[in-house]
Amino acid sequence: MSEVASFERMWADLSEIGRDPATGGYHRFAWNDADMALREWFRGQADVRGMPLTEDGNGNQFASWGDRTAGDAVLLGSHLDSVPDGGAYDGPLGVVSAFAAVDALRARDIVPTRPVVIANFADEEGSRFGVACAGSRLLTGTLAPERARALTDRDGRTLDDVLRDRGRDPERLGPDEELLASIGTFVELHVEQGRALVDSGAPIGVASAIWPHGRYRFDFTGESNHAGTTRMEDRHDPMLTYAMTALAANKQARLTGTRATFGRVETHPNGTNAIASRVTGWLDARAADGEALDGLLERVTAQAADRAQRDGTTVEVATESSSAVVEFDNGLRDRVSSILGDAPVLPTGAGHDAGVLSTYGIPTAMVFVRNPTGVSHSPAEYAQWDDCVAGVEALVEVVADLVGP
Amino acid sequence: MSEVASFERMWADLSEIGRDPATGGYHRFAWNDADMALREWFRGQADVRGMPLTEDGNGNQFASWGDRTAGDAVLLGSHLDSVPDGGAYDGPLGVVSAFAAVDALRARDIVPTRPVVIANFADEEGSRFGVACAGSRLLTGTLAPERARALTDRDGRTLDDVLRDRGRDPERLGPDEELLASIGTFVELHVEQGRALVDSGAPIGVASAIWPHGRYRFDFTGESNHAGTTRMEDRHDPMLTYAMTALAANKQARLTGTRATFGRVETHPNGTNAIASRVTGWLDARAADGEALDGLLERVTAQAADRAQRDGTTVEVATESSSAVVEFDNGLRDRVSSILGDAPVLPTGAGHDAGVLSTYGIPTAMVFVRNPTGVSHSPAEYAQWDDCVAGVEALVEVVADLVGP
Repeated sequence: MSEVASFERMWADLSEIGRDPATGGYHRFAWNDADMALREWFRGQADVRGMPLTEDGNGNQFASWGDRTAGDAVLLGSHLDSVPDGGAYDGPLGVVSAFAAVDALRARDIVPTRPVVIANFADEEGSRFGVACAGSRLLTGTLAPERARALTDRDGRTLDDVLRDRGRDPERLGPDEELLASIGTFVELHVEQGRALVDSGAPIGVASAIWPHGRYRFDFTGESNHAGTTRMEDRHDPMLTYAMTALAANKQARLTGTRATFGRVETHPNGTNAIASRVTGWLDARAADGEALDGLLERVTAQAADRAQRDGTTVEVATESSSAVVEFDNGLRDRVSSILGDAPVLPTGAGHDAGVLSTYGIPTAMVFVRNPTGVSHSPAEYAQWDDCVAGVEALVEVVADLVGP
Repeated sequence: MSEVASFERMWADLSEIGRDPATGGYHRFAWNDADMALREWFRGQADVRGMPLTEDGNGNQFASWGDRTAGDAVLLGSHLDSVPDGGAYDGPLGVVSAFAAVDALRARDIVPTRPVVIANFADEEGSRFGVACAGSRLLTGTLAPERARALTDRDGRTLDDVLRDRGRDPERLGPDEELLASIGTFVELHVEQGRALVDSGAPIGVASAIWPHGRYRFDFTGESNHAGTTRMEDRHDPMLTYAMTALAANKQARLTGTRATFGRVETHPNGTNAIASRVTGWLDARAADGEALDGLLERVTAQAADRAQRDGTTVEVATESSSAVVEFDNGLRDRVSSILGDAPVLPTGAGHDAGVLSTYGIPTAMVFVRNPTGVSHSPAEYAQWDDCVAGVEALVEVVADLVGP
């Protein structure tokens, strides 16, 4: 495949943007300097291919091959942002593979009967403002613009402020019916975030469904005091309530076959010689169905409240985001799997813009590229070169089928 | 007491420096902007009283009434820095009361037979660089200058860098024998950090001893991964090891009559949808004697290691600081208590520069001012005005006795 050269160059372009040299991980968060550099990179890739670029009011970028407004477009792409200290593949693999697929289709002199559009969705990871898939949720109307504008990052800056600083107009946030109406099909390619393809010995897979999931903020409040002079029995230490809740969440997830993680915690005042006055922990919870997810949250909340009573602290739980189960379009799923030589079909616990657009009603498929270690959201995230090339070829086959005569 | 006016003015001067208007707490950390303003304030107070100011190579400030180099000086004062979101009294009460006491002694036309010196010790809380009583430890040689220079703050800046930025020469860090030799007695006044004086109905107390204490950094290391797609049984989550360790420390302290606190925690990468790769928690531990403290640390470390094995994580424990028990000079303690009308004598779990100088061999006493709630290291820290005035009067009586003919 002659497009391997452009594929390699794109990876080389991206490799240093937002990279922490100490860990090798990426810090590409919505509208930070790295994200701005990635947006410029995307614009450049569109330009060199003569693909007109549009950006919707939510910061989602779209590069078009053919006249998108003619409708029934085949949308490819993914996102370029990362989790804190994230890997190189989660997101960028889908965008880079889409550009390489366009190069390959053109090299084969294919003239698409439908427009082909590549997306870079804004703020998929929600690393900065706490809401995952913020760009696609705003586009489809499942995240209200007023709520989005008031979201704050860790420095207390609102999305509204940040957008203005970056020359965007927060008044433009919100659904874009014209744009959505022009998309006929969405195919998102993504690195697998688990080991199912390793187990089945296949380089490429197709998604069946996305587990329902949610992010819940647990605010534990107690009383700050001197760590040396306050008797143990006089304390109201929210760190203890948090600690018990983190252990309870893990235990409940093990018992019920669900997933629960406290990976983010913030403490106030966070001094070595002061009992904390407040500890905030974020629970990421997922399950195969909504009932199991609700049950998990209910049990963890009950155990937190019980422990808070014993510690003389309080706990408040707020849902920061929640997503119902996503069943991808069955017809499209089977068609894609069949084009790819009966590629394995598998569910995933990870959320994606593909899930948001599928829920909105756009026929959507996801193509997964094998992850040899299963590790993701980590600098150690990895995919083999041959499997990445197989991913591009898979996209070429699928798009050729979708846009063929 | 006519000096109440100057006492009031000094409090008014200090009230806004480094104050967070949202919480009412203070953020006065070694060499930050607030600390620089406090240093200038101290210099101004020395100037208006005609007390020559010297700063040693460690940033400790000394204002002298009489010729300090004549020797056998009576040292008063305390520190002006705070814990994160700390109270108004811990530290400043000792400095402000010392200046007010000098005003009162002068108003009575007392001519001291010994120099009277007021200290502002640098970085008592260790909020920024992690080592408590850094200024007095450097002065007395119990903190090595090379170690101090390499200490880093939360932004990764070394003390060496910070000192240079503030116009100080890090080469000058270290013991100052000449200065130490000139001090005959140290009396540190401090707000009580507990409720013993409330229980005994006395506004003023005298310290018998400081409990031994230490700060220990627990580094828990696991494997970062995707919170949604990683099966519970495939995880190596250091948050669980940390959580169990925090609960174990609390339980051990309750069982053994000691004190143990995890009030500070840092998580990497600290993303909602990523399993943590690293969690660092700081244990503050105190006990009535060194054996009990060692036993506490041993049990907590053993439980952490045991849990780490179950979680597939690792734990490393580093001692960031440790202080042996301090028994204050018995003769001085009894003399001060007797001058103050048999003020109650009580031990404390809090570390102080007085402990460092006492351990060095300088006869040292501590005077405590009643704390109606016992709360300290918190914006809610409080002392009644009448008790603060009684503290100044106590200093006046003690100094008059020490410097009298």
